[in-house]
Amino acid sequence: MKTQVAIIGAGPSGLLLGQLLHQAGIQTLILERQSADYVLGRIRAGVLEQGMVDLLREAGVSQRMDAEGLVHDGFELALNGQLTHIDLKALTGGQSVMVYGQTEVTRDLMDARAAAGAITLYNAREVQPHGLKTDQPWLTFEHEGETFRLECDYVAGCDGFHGVARQAIPAESLKVFERVYPFGWLGILADTPPVHEELVYAKHARGFALCSMRSPTRSRYYLQVPVEESVDAWSDQRFWDELKVRLPSHLAEQLVTGPSIEKSIAPLRSFVVEPMQYGRLFLLGDAAHIVPPTGAKGLNLAASDVSTLFRILLKVYREGRVELLEKYSEICLRRVWKAERFSWWMTSMLHQFPEADGFSQRIAESELAYFINSHAGRTTIAENYVGLPYEAIE
Amino acid sequence: MKTQVAIIGAGPSGLLLGQLLHQAGIQTLILERQSADYVLGRIRAGVLEQGMVDLLREAGVSQRMDAEGLVHDGFELALNGQLTHIDLKALTGGQSVMVYGQTEVTRDLMDARAAAGAITLYNAREVQPHGLKTDQPWLTFEHEGETFRLECDYVAGCDGFHGVARQAIPAESLKVFERVYPFGWLGILADTPPVHEELVYAKHARGFALCSMRSPTRSRYYLQVPVEESVDAWSDQRFWDELKVRLPSHLAEQLVTGPSIEKSIAPLRSFVVEPMQYGRLFLLGDAAHIVPPTGAKGLNLAASDVSTLFRILLKVYREGRVELLEKYSEICLRRVWKAERFSWWMTSMLHQFPEADGFSQRIAESELAYFINSHAGRTTIAENYVGLPYEAIE
Repeated sequence: MKTQVAIIGAGPSGLLLGQLLHQAGIQTLILERQSADYVLGRIRAGVLEQGMVDLLREAGVSQRMDAEGLVHDGFELALNGQLTHIDLKALTGGQSVMVYGQTEVTRDLMDARAAAGAITLYNAREVQPHGLKTDQPWLTFEHEGETFRLECDYVAGCDGFHGVARQAIPAESLKVFERVYPFGWLGILADTPPVHEELVYAKHARGFALCSMRSPTRSRYYLQVPVEESVDAWSDQRFWDELKVRLPSHLAEQLVTGPSIEKSIAPLRSFVVEPMQYGRLFLLGDAAHIVPPTGAKGLNLAASDVSTLFRILLKVYREGRVELLEKYSEICLRRVWKAERFSWWMTSMLHQFPEADGFSQRIAESELAYFINSHAGRTTIAENYVGLPYEAIE
Repeated sequence: MKTQVAIIGAGPSGLLLGQLLHQAGIQTLILERQSADYVLGRIRAGVLEQGMVDLLREAGVSQRMDAEGLVHDGFELALNGQLTHIDLKALTGGQSVMVYGQTEVTRDLMDARAAAGAITLYNAREVQPHGLKTDQPWLTFEHEGETFRLECDYVAGCDGFHGVARQAIPAESLKVFERVYPFGWLGILADTPPVHEELVYAKHARGFALCSMRSPTRSRYYLQVPVEESVDAWSDQRFWDELKVRLPSHLAEQLVTGPSIEKSIAPLRSFVVEPMQYGRLFLLGDAAHIVPPTGAKGLNLAASDVSTLFRILLKVYREGRVELLEKYSEICLRRVWKAERFSWWMTSMLHQFPEADGFSQRIAESELAYFINSHAGRTTIAENYVGLPYEAIE
C-alpha cells in the first residue's frame, strides 16, 4: 500500500487534515484504532474559534455547522454572585465563537470523506511508524487479521494523547512540559434548555462551575471536583443541587434539571512536547499538547496545527518548498504556548486550589477583579477566547 | 501634649499626610525614631505615578519636582537582546510617570513642614500607642531622656515595615499575606549618565537587570542576585561586567561606568496585612504592605493610602462623617491588592526563579510574549505602571 500522507487517527484533526489535503489533490490514508461509532461516541469540546470555523468552511464541511451552530458574541463570568459580560464581538472588533459539538464536526468530516471516496481504515491495530528519519517512511498495522505495510511521504500523528505517534519518537528527542491540576471536571449532558443563552464560567468558594450547551435543547454542565472523586458518588440530584449552589441565585432559580444522558469526570492537565516533529512524522493536536478545558482551546489548537501542516504540505507538493517542513514545530509551538498560557490562566483564576496559600488566593482574586474591570484586561480575555490569529506560511 | 492626628514616622508618607492635614487646618505632630539625616540618607524608589505627582502638587510641595523631575512617557523591556517600548502616554491616553528620587520628595516635604512651623520630633524613642479602641487614644514616647504622653484623636502609622504601629495591633486582629522571593536586588548608585533616557527592565537567562536613574547625571542600576548573596562579593567592576552581559549589546556598548557611591542588596517581598486599621490607628504604606520593587509601586501605594486617609479625615473633621473611618481599610486594600498583583506579576515575568519547573518557565515566556505583542496586553502593563486611579471618597 502507498499514499502521500499517512494520517494516524480519525478524530477531528485527522479527518480535517485529510479533507483539506484531499481537496488539494494530495492523497491521504487514515488509520484509526477504534471503530467509527466509538469515535463518534466521545463527548468532547463544543466551542469553535473563528479560525477553526473558517478552516471548516475552507474544507467545504461547514454546511450543517453554519445552519445549526450557535454563534456566540460573548460569554459570562460569574463572580461573587454577579455576572460580568465579556462582549467578544465589541472587544475584538467583530469576532465571535461558534457553539457546535466536536461530535458533530467529526460526523460532518466523516460524511465528507466518505462522499469523496477517501479511505479511512477503522479498527486498524498495532499501528507502528518506521523509517521516520528516511525519505520513505512507512507504517505497519494489522487489519482484520492481516498485517499491512503502508508507504508514504509523510506521517501525520493525529491520534491523541495516548496514541502511538508520539511514542514512536525516541524519548531523548522530546522535551516534556507538564502540569497536573489537583481537580477534575465532572460533566453532565442533559436534554434540557440551557440555563443561559451564553456560556457562564462561575467562580465560587466551593469550586468552579461551567454552564455550556450543545443546542437550544441540550445542555452541558460541569463542576470542579477533587481529582480522586468517583462519578458514582454523584447522582443527578446531587449534581443539580451542587450546581445551583455555585451559580448566582437568579440563574439557579431558572435552571431546568433533568436526567443526565452522559456523566463523566475528566482530569485537568497541561502538557506540551517539544518539538512537535521527528523526521517525517508530525504531531498534531492532543498528540503533542493538552490544555485544561477552561477556555475551550483543545480542539481549536488541533485545528491550528492542521492548518499549519496543511499549508506547509501544499507548498512542499506544489512548489518544492521542503525547507518549510523544518519550521512546522516552531510555528505551531508559538501559538500552542499562548493557548497553553491562556488555558492555564483561566484555570488558575476560576478554580479553587486546595493547597493555595492566602497570598496566592488574594492574587487570583485581584487579578480577576483587575482584568474584568479594565477594558484592556477584558480585551486580553476576549482576544484569547476567540483565538489568536494563525501565522501565515510564507 | 495634645494634637489632632498623631503621625508615627517622618518618611515621605508621614510627612505628606502631615502637610495635607496642616494645609486643611488639622493639627498634626510627627514622631520619628531616627534623625532627619538618617531619614534622608535612605536610598529608595524614584518613579512617581501621576496620582502621587498630583497629590504632591495638591500639598504645595511640587515646585522643585516640577523643575527637576524627569517626565517619562514610556519605558523599555529588554527581552532576548531586543528592546520593546512600552509607550505609557499613547497606551493610557496621555499619562506618564515622573522620575524624582524619594530622598528628594522627603527633603521637599521636610522643608515645607519646617516652613509651616509644624512639629516633627526626631529621635523620639519607645513610641507606643495606647487606647486605640477608645475615643481618646494616646502615645507615649521618650525624647532627650524624658517620657512624654501625646493625646490625639487619631493615630497614623507611617513607620514602615519594622515600625511599632503594626506591632501595636493584637496579632489575632490581623491576617497576614506574604510571599518571599528567592532572590534580591543588588543596587548601585553612580554619578554617570544613564545608559538610556528611559528605564530599561531586562529579562536575561542570568537574571533580571534594571537600568534606572535619578537625574541626567546620576544612574541607578540593579541586578537580580541570590537572596543569600553578600554585597562584599560585588566589586564595582564585577557589577558593571555582569550588567553588560544582561543588557542588549547595543546598550552594553553605550554603558558609562564609574565608581559606585552606594551599593546594597535588598530582599524582595510581597506582604499585606488585613485590615489596615485597628480602632483609631490607621496603617499607611510599608507599615501595612510591601511590594517587590519591580513596577515601582511601593512609594506610590503609600501615597494613595495618604490620599485616602487625608480625604476621610477631611470629611470627618469638616462634616462629621465618622462612618467613613470604617471604610479606610477596604478602600485602600482594593488598590493595594491590584498593585500587589502587578508587582508580583512583573517580578514573576522578568526574574529567573531557580526552582521553576520547565512548564512554569515556558508559561512566563509565553505570557510576556503575548502581553508585549498584544496592544491590549501592553495597555494592561501601561495602565498599571502609571498607576490605577484613586477611588473617590463619597
